[in-house]
Amino acid sequence: MSHKKSKKANLFYAQSGGVTGVINSTARAVIETAFKSRAINNVLIGCHGIQGLLREELYDISKESKKAITGLRYIPGGAFGSCRYKLTNPDENRTEYKRIIEVCKAHNIKYFLYNGGNDSADTTYKLSKISAEMDYPLICIGIPKTMDNDLDCMDVSPGYGSVAKFIATTTKETGVDVKSMAPATQIYILETMGRHAGWIAASSGLAKQHESDPPHIILLPEVRFNREKFLAKVDECVKKYGYCHIVTSESIRNNHGVHIAETSQRDAFGHIQLGGLAPILANMIHEHFGYKYHFSIADYIQRASRHLGCQTDLQQAYAVGKAAVKFALQGKNGVAPIIIRKPKTKKYKWEIGEASLQKIANNERNIPRDFISEDGMGITQKCYDYIYPLIQGEDFPPFKNGLPKYEKLKLELIAKKLEPFRLRE
Amino acid sequence: MSHKKSKKANLFYAQSGGVTGVINSTARAVIETAFKSRAINNVLIGCHGIQGLLREELYDISKESKKAITGLRYIPGGAFGSCRYKLTNPDENRTEYKRIIEVCKAHNIKYFLYNGGNDSADTTYKLSKISAEMDYPLICIGIPKTMDNDLDCMDVSPGYGSVAKFIATTTKETGVDVKSMAPATQIYILETMGRHAGWIAASSGLAKQHESDPPHIILLPEVRFNREKFLAKVDECVKKYGYCHIVTSESIRNNHGVHIAETSQRDAFGHIQLGGLAPILANMIHEHFGYKYHFSIADYIQRASRHLGCQTDLQQAYAVGKAAVKFALQGKNGVAPIIIRKPKTKKYKWEIGEASLQKIANNERNIPRDFISEDGMGITQKCYDYIYPLIQGEDFPPFKNGLPKYEKLKLELIAKKLEPFRLRE
Repeated sequence: MSHKKSKKANLFYAQSGGVTGVINSTARAVIETAFKSRAINNVLIGCHGIQGLLREELYDISKESKKAITGLRYIPGGAFGSCRYKLTNPDENRTEYKRIIEVCKAHNIKYFLYNGGNDSADTTYKLSKISAEMDYPLICIGIPKTMDNDLDCMDVSPGYGSVAKFIATTTKETGVDVKSMAPATQIYILETMGRHAGWIAASSGLAKQHESDPPHIILLPEVRFNREKFLAKVDECVKKYGYCHIVTSESIRNNHGVHIAETSQRDAFGHIQLGGLAPILANMIHEHFGYKYHFSIADYIQRASRHLGCQTDLQQAYAVGKAAVKFALQGKNGVAPIIIRKPKTKKYKWEIGEASLQKIANNERNIPRDFISEDGMGITQKCYDYIYPLIQGEDFPPFKNGLPKYEKLKLELIAKKLEPFRLRE
Repeated sequence: MSHKKSKKANLFYAQSGGVTGVINSTARAVIETAFKSRAINNVLIGCHGIQGLLREELYDISKESKKAITGLRYIPGGAFGSCRYKLTNPDENRTEYKRIIEVCKAHNIKYFLYNGGNDSADTTYKLSKISAEMDYPLICIGIPKTMDNDLDCMDVSPGYGSVAKFIATTTKETGVDVKSMAPATQIYILETMGRHAGWIAASSGLAKQHESDPPHIILLPEVRFNREKFLAKVDECVKKYGYCHIVTSESIRNNHGVHIAETSQRDAFGHIQLGGLAPILANMIHEHFGYKYHFSIADYIQRASRHLGCQTDLQQAYAVGKAAVKFALQGKNGVAPIIIRKPKTKKYKWEIGEASLQKIANNERNIPRDFISEDGMGITQKCYDYIYPLIQGEDFPPFKNGLPKYEKLKLELIAKKLEPFRLRE
């Protein structure tokens, strides 16, 4: 079979924003799918997201072994580095866009695949417009990722199922722990990530089978915090069950829209003490009732917990990566593959759909009111039914010497062809 | 074969102090071994430790199914409830001891097995003495348990291997996470349990294979905290690796022996703010260098993390439970089965030994100086070699509906025969 080598182009892929336990599975899918296509010559991956493209720091994936690529499945974090770098508004300054086009031209990059959340969708969308205006039309595809699950247009953001599975699991585990310690410990608070959307905290509700099971209280950013109602429920639980297990999102607001952390944690100089929400709630309860407490702040533990792999999430993370390459090869532009839940099936079934990056970029998905219990401190059956299928299936990594084993990537940078470029601070 | 039923006696077992991920495996071993013996009629388990014995609240284990007992292997926490209840000094007040003897007599309890740490060893030791003096000589056996690993006389305390495995795993996982986020996140601090002994924080060192690997700094209660040296090393790591991954025990002291938390966290009224050590260190670094940080406080997450089972620890937890019953049947008294590391074997080999409860009760084991690196902020090869075999092997629980599945115990209390007893507050 013959096909002109000159027609082959390179595909750029990069990871952006807060990483997830499965973003490397998306990377793996992109690489494996791209290398199966005759239209693609090589996959170049940005070292620390779009910063790598601007700096011309591009990993040469043709240098990696098949084993290393397959092994991406088990590595949490972003294997190629992530970033929190927002391109300038193109109406004000196009220096960065020009540089991107320059680098793409120099390395024969025709496909731009960016794996991230809202901001990354925005970047990708803008680039698809500007590159066309600049006469180097890049095919720009977004690939959704965020454990926060706050991306619009899709049933679920890849990355969420894994963290939901970990939080539900640790809620069940810490629940039996505190129950056995009561009354030596009466209050346990688990603080999860989730600043604007409470999906992660909500997933703890999957551990609850009976009224008496933990979590007894879930605090969500979607619900205004009511101190009196909260304390009353805490007390009720301790009296009824001997203990109270609370899961809180990292950020909740009072009736005036002010973060609880801001109101409570100022030192003698008026500085805000940044110490997490869990200890503030714990102190609040302790001062009021004298109850003894423990608390955890899960932070990176939760999102890096790849040792407890979630099969469904891994499959979805792989599927969007694979679809993104197919979309690119089909000449689609300014769109992202998304997960769609098939309606009216008894068992959870999903498929890949397509959404515009513009729409993903400009919307944030919060927990709808009918997913939250009437008192605002728990989830409804509807919410349970939504999250339940997303945490199904286990996928443990291989272990060596007692610890998860990660394949080593070579991470060889491709030779630079251009002058250095200075990033904004 | 005939043996007089009247000669059969009941065995009492209870769980005390902070629970571990494998203490229920010890319970399982006690039950399974006891039920194999013709000398033992039934196993009665204290509801919340020795409090259950004082209150005559005893679970009737003959009512439990074999499946439920086997299933104890997978449940974290204390399946029968734990307690933090110290008996009075018998030289001052013997009310509680009299009550215990009364309850043991009423329920034909001849064997007393208590599963806990130093305090429980002390309780068990005292009871063996006093019961003899009171003409109802109980056979008293302690069973070691503590994830803190601070029990003397033994190679390792059952419970430690599991938490060490989790901490080493999450160190490896959060390590790749923060590395991929740098410089958007430059500092990550993981706070582990361990107030007086730093064994848990030390276990994070197993994640380190190369100089550049996390953890870059380990803070231990055994080492006086030196702010200047600490900040200098943090800065060095950020400059060298782009980020600094720190693991700290929950309690560290400065040169004056004062807890760091106490010196830093007073509010406008002089109250100590109890918010964990990690945010204090994070603020310290941020104020000095401006570095962006994240932190986790693992607390119950780490010790309840049975989803990541440690095979070695499970085997040791089972072995001490089994040996405790055998010791009791051999008429041993005032002792505990312990784990002994066989010397001079290439592969880790261990066996069960025996230690006096008096000795266990009165000593605490800290990390020896030659296990700690010269700068006081890391572990030596000797420490690595000690912990390494303890975290080997995986034992995942069964999962159902996406979560670890726990067998349900009936937890039926035996009929009371005595008047109620009021516990001290």
